[in-house]
Amino acid sequence: MSMNSLGIVKRNIARADKSAVESLSRFGAATVHEAMGRVGLMKPYIRPIYPGGYACGPAVTVLLQPGDNWMLHVAAEQIQPGDVVVAAVTAENTDGFFGDLLATSFLARGARGLVIDGGVRDVKDLTEMQFPVWSKAISAKGTVKATLGSVNIPVVCAGALVNPGDVVIADDDGVVVVPAAVAQQAADAAEARENNEAVKREKLAAGVLGLDMYEMREPLARAGLTYLD
Amino acid sequence: MSMNSLGIVKRNIARADKSAVESLSRFGAATVHEAMGRVGLMKPYIRPIYPGGYACGPAVTVLLQPGDNWMLHVAAEQIQPGDVVVAAVTAENTDGFFGDLLATSFLARGARGLVIDGGVRDVKDLTEMQFPVWSKAISAKGTVKATLGSVNIPVVCAGALVNPGDVVIADDDGVVVVPAAVAQQAADAAEARENNEAVKREKLAAGVLGLDMYEMREPLARAGLTYLD
Amino acid sequence: MSMNSLGIVKRNIARADKSAVESLSRFGAATVHEAMGRVGLMKPYIRPIYPGGYACGPAVTVLLQPGDNWMLHVAAEQIQPGDVVVAAVTAENTDGFFGDLLATSFLARGARGLVIDGGVRDVKDLTEMQFPVWSKAISAKGTVKATLGSVNIPVVCAGALVNPGDVVIADDDGVVVVPAAVAQQAADAAEARENNEAVKREKLAAGVLGLDMYEMREPLARAGLTYLD
Amino acid sequence: MSMNSLGIVKRNIARADKSAVESLSRFGAATVHEAMGRVGLMKPYIRPIYPGGYACGPAVTVLLQPGDNWMLHVAAEQIQPGDVVVAAVTAENTDGFFGDLLATSFLARGARGLVIDGGVRDVKDLTEMQFPVWSKAISAKGTVKATLGSVNIPVVCAGALVNPGDVVIADDDGVVVVPAAVAQQAADAAEARENNEAVKREKLAAGVLGLDMYEMREPLARAGLTYLD
Amino acid sequence: MSMNSLGIVKRNIARADKSAVESLSRFGAATVHEAMGRVGLMKPYIRPIYPGGYACGPAVTVLLQPGDNWMLHVAAEQIQPGDVVVAAVTAENTDGFFGDLLATSFLARGARGLVIDGGVRDVKDLTEMQFPVWSKAISAKGTVKATLGSVNIPVVCAGALVNPGDVVIADDDGVVVVPAAVAQQAADAAEARENNEAVKREKLAAGVLGLDMYEMREPLARAGLTYLD
Amino acid sequence: MSMNSLGIVKRNIARADKSAVESLSRFGAATVHEAMGRVGLMKPYIRPIYPGGYACGPAVTVLLQPGDNWMLHVAAEQIQPGDVVVAAVTAENTDGFFGDLLATSFLARGARGLVIDGGVRDVKDLTEMQFPVWSKAISAKGTVKATLGSVNIPVVCAGALVNPGDVVIADDDGVVVVPAAVAQQAADAAEARENNEAVKREKLAAGVLGLDMYEMREPLARAGLTYLD
Repeated sequence: MSMNSLGIVKRNIARADKSAVESLSRFGAATVHEAMGRVGLMKPYIRPIYPGGYACGPAVTVLLQPGDNWMLHVAAEQIQPGDVVVAAVTAENTDGFFGDLLATSFLARGARGLVIDGGVRDVKDLTEMQFPVWSKAISAKGTVKATLGSVNIPVVCAGALVNPGDVVIADDDGVVVVPAAVAQQAADAAEARENNEAVKREKLAAGVLGLDMYEMREPLARAGLTYLD
Repeated sequence: MSMNSLGIVKRNIARADKSAVESLSRFGAATVHEAMGRVGLMKPYIRPIYPGGYACGPAVTVLLQPGDNWMLHVAAEQIQPGDVVVAAVTAENTDGFFGDLLATSFLARGARGLVIDGGVRDVKDLTEMQFPVWSKAISAKGTVKATLGSVNIPVVCAGALVNPGDVVIADDDGVVVVPAAVAQQAADAAEARENNEAVKREKLAAGVLGLDMYEMREPLARAGLTYLD
Repeated sequence: MSMNSLGIVKRNIARADKSAVESLSRFGAATVHEAMGRVGLMKPYIRPIYPGGYACGPAVTVLLQPGDNWMLHVAAEQIQPGDVVVAAVTAENTDGFFGDLLATSFLARGARGLVIDGGVRDVKDLTEMQFPVWSKAISAKGTVKATLGSVNIPVVCAGALVNPGDVVIADDDGVVVVPAAVAQQAADAAEARENNEAVKREKLAAGVLGLDMYEMREPLARAGLTYLD
Repeated sequence: MSMNSLGIVKRNIARADKSAVESLSRFGAATVHEAMGRVGLMKPYIRPIYPGGYACGPAVTVLLQPGDNWMLHVAAEQIQPGDVVVAAVTAENTDGFFGDLLATSFLARGARGLVIDGGVRDVKDLTEMQFPVWSKAISAKGTVKATLGSVNIPVVCAGALVNPGDVVIADDDGVVVVPAAVAQQAADAAEARENNEAVKREKLAAGVLGLDMYEMREPLARAGLTYLD
Repeated sequence: MSMNSLGIVKRNIARADKSAVESLSRFGAATVHEAMGRVGLMKPYIRPIYPGGYACGPAVTVLLQPGDNWMLHVAAEQIQPGDVVVAAVTAENTDGFFGDLLATSFLARGARGLVIDGGVRDVKDLTEMQFPVWSKAISAKGTVKATLGSVNIPVVCAGALVNPGDVVIADDDGVVVVPAAVAQQAADAAEARENNEAVKREKLAAGVLGLDMYEMREPLARAGLTYLD
Repeated sequence: MSMNSLGIVKRNIARADKSAVESLSRFGAATVHEAMGRVGLMKPYIRPIYPGGYACGPAVTVLLQPGDNWMLHVAAEQIQPGDVVVAAVTAENTDGFFGDLLATSFLARGARGLVIDGGVRDVKDLTEMQFPVWSKAISAKGTVKATLGSVNIPVVCAGALVNPGDVVIADDDGVVVVPAAVAQQAADAAEARENNEAVKREKLAAGVLGLDMYEMREPLARAGLTYLD
């Protein structure tokens, strides 16, 4: 085992099962996160550059150096149709690592979106292209191409561990990561959860209180909740 | 007087006078804040989840524990048509305490909106439902139902004191709180202010300078302002 | 040379050449920033209050005191058609220094937009008026008119030095400042860059990789990049 | 009831009972906060300017305007020996409102310390004087004396409601507020808690596990905790 | 493979080799981070609670829920002499999860320190005990014991992946994580680096410029650096 | 005039007059900032790495690229005894650009300190060497030497414009910049101010209120301040 994880591109990665990804792509980040038992969520400072975007696909991971987007070009070659690129940075940095040219290239390779723990630019163009991006910042600041990072190694992006091939689900609520090995299991749990929610939604719309629907009155009383007039 | 303010639900609260609330509902947060003498504003980190939302109504207050939304279910039962729910948290926390199911329930109870010093999720659904929410964060992270907080006690939300029944006015500029006892007085002051502004707006649009309209030239000179060529 | 830079209004400023401004107004902040050699950018915490706004024009600069917008009224008189107002504050402050009344006045004077290292309010009105503003915060908090600042002195706004008359270009990606003396040079460099980009965009859209188009494979190998299967 | 809470100085305030304050002064902020049932804590961004400081006393409250320390001079006259001054600001601001001159004056009046939701300066002098201050920032930026705030009205400081006369306990862990009416009750609860802790500390030091001392093994198992080898 | 990583305690973990840990314990975080090729560093918001503390040892990892320190008690039992506890939280939270009682227990078990992506309290006591803690915040806010997390699963703490048994090196510069498998290799590289630095330090102290010592003049000129008089 | 300000080293800079620097070196940042009329202050996020440090001297300025400290080595050669190095970064970045080796070199050249809008490391060593540094962050993260910045061009550091040769005064309260041309004038104003303060301090210590000493009672009454019992 080598100590150094920089300067590496892994070409063959084990992407999550296609049908599992397809199943997961029917659900939002919040539902999948709940289905996973509330793990795997990126920090909420990662925000979509425009509302309404959605991406679900296996991760091509990238480790960038601050102020340097060289590895995003290297990553482009590793993208397969349906992939979502996940880019971490070795230090806190808000530069605009990604813009409309790279988006054009990523789209041509079939990428579904980008999640980046740094900044992006050309957000008006990206919005018009409807290429969804989740980022830490928006910044016109360009980057150099001088220092190596890596592609398709495990990365920590916005507080979440992402292994290449893991499924990434991103929407207006945030970004959740599902390990490839449990993708189908997570999809099944999400489906069960969503079916369950439809019934609840109807009851609540009809005026039934959560207090009654979830049978909370007794445990609340036991915990000592006191009603005063 | 008891020391402990946790584990309490106050059922009968003195809501601000209905006609005062109705009067206030014709004004935005900035106007009411000025009319109040520039007090009662929440910190600007509280932002609407979508632009253009508006809420004005008596506050049902909630004190939540971090990572725990139990009390929002308890609060639902206390909502009367026209109320705005204001939720504080006992510690800094960005979890997604509130989503489309609770919004469905709150809407069924007649709530006009939610202000929360924490996170929310399902923001795409909330936007489609046009249920306006002002929050500190957006996060897919779900919460548990394990620890008691309180409902309808005085809370500090985003730096502002909110007593149950106070009027909350929220729009794209932020959230302002009007004590129930001065709601009509604030509405009257806001109206006077707004009438006054219409005239000013016309003059300024016609090219009159604020320097002249507000008679600032003399006090500026007295303060020592120097014009150089 | 006087030590004190407060309490001064400079009336005659050397605005950047009109045709240079016109040339620059065809480009976005990111393109101009690259053309400038990656200098002159404001920090990314300065954000537009609505997406899609654009402003390009000579700067009328303002130095404000925290919680005090007196100098914005003084600045209004110095605006010439096509100008962009750039307001710095002597301390970190998020108050709403600017709203629909001042915007009405600025528009009547021919201003193209406002960049402010503080807060603004009435953002719904400003959006309807399509008066573009780039700010640090949105806040309903009003301000007083009590303490002198200055107009048309050099200011530091969001980390960038702005001399009165410099060209300010602002869009969804951020705000960049071009010294008046190099405005035409920057416009020419931006044009060269943009022409160059059109060709690249086409190639990338056709599936050519940046790795090949930019001839990166050899320098990456030299830097030690290793491909693993 | 007047709507306006600015421009007011309340001279006679109901300070918490002296013996209750004395009792409380034997405990730290964390102990009192626990004893209170985990309410009344200021946000953790309020930090001491030097380690090891401690203050406990009735609050003289101040509401300041951003960039303006006029009201601190007004407050000085209201200080009685043993008081702790608590200063809120009507907007987010980091200016240096307080320095060695005001500290000299506060000390001469018998103040035990200052808690301020803004900035302070002369921190080296304050450290040498051992005048403890808890603040949001340290800044050399001076302030003007131009706009009215208030003294001895209820204020929200760093997220906590403080009524004049309430007991403020501040140390390296933060700042907690005890309503005057429950000061003795809180002191008694803190004492019970501290006695209790001495025994626990001894057991834990002897190697007894919290798991056993608090009898957690059974509830953990019930909650589903699984041990793997 | 189970989807759920909550509610688990792994008892037998593969701690890094003792002699490797001992070797590493002669170096600071910056040296080890460089020796590792600049990977494995926690974000700089994690700060020591007092200056001069140092910890180096195998990680016992903990995953906490916001506002809940139950798992720290569970973790205490898993500590072996020399271990460093690393605690992640499932959401952003600044509560005081850890204080002098837990520190007493951890010390009795032989722990060398704590790294926590949340808050701590009793920092004066911890300083007197010289139990070093690196945390995100200091807060008097206590926590409950209600929801399960896990012990000795892989966690992401302050942006760094930590597997149980990895070596954690923490000092005034920050916290770095060395995978157990490369601990000796990292120690060797750190030693080589440090030997090398002693010679450099001497030369620099004697007035030799880095420009000459590192032979930078030629590459700087090649990169286009221009000297002006 | 060239558009590009990167890749430049200015060798001959006009340092502020020696005797003016010496005069200024008797005063702290707050006093000089007041004497300057409250301009020229860096943002308060720039903090000393240890308490009690002080630096006053002409600025050698540096513009760094994120994650790259090449230019600090270039700057070392330009340092003359008594200088203070001021380093700006072209983007927000917290890397550890500076450590004990560079400090050894800077000390050998006669530098009095460093102000950097980025991170530093080896803070324990720097503290032992008593080489004072004011920085935005502390981080063990090392940097590369790959991209050109500049030395001795005007830079914006933490919101303040610094021209090479300007006097920088830094202490526990922050960092203030005095243009070289007004250095003596600022020193004189600071002296006048400080003499004035000694008298005031004595009066305040004797119990005289600021209200009386500054004759504030009349203007406060005029502004509408109301005393209630």
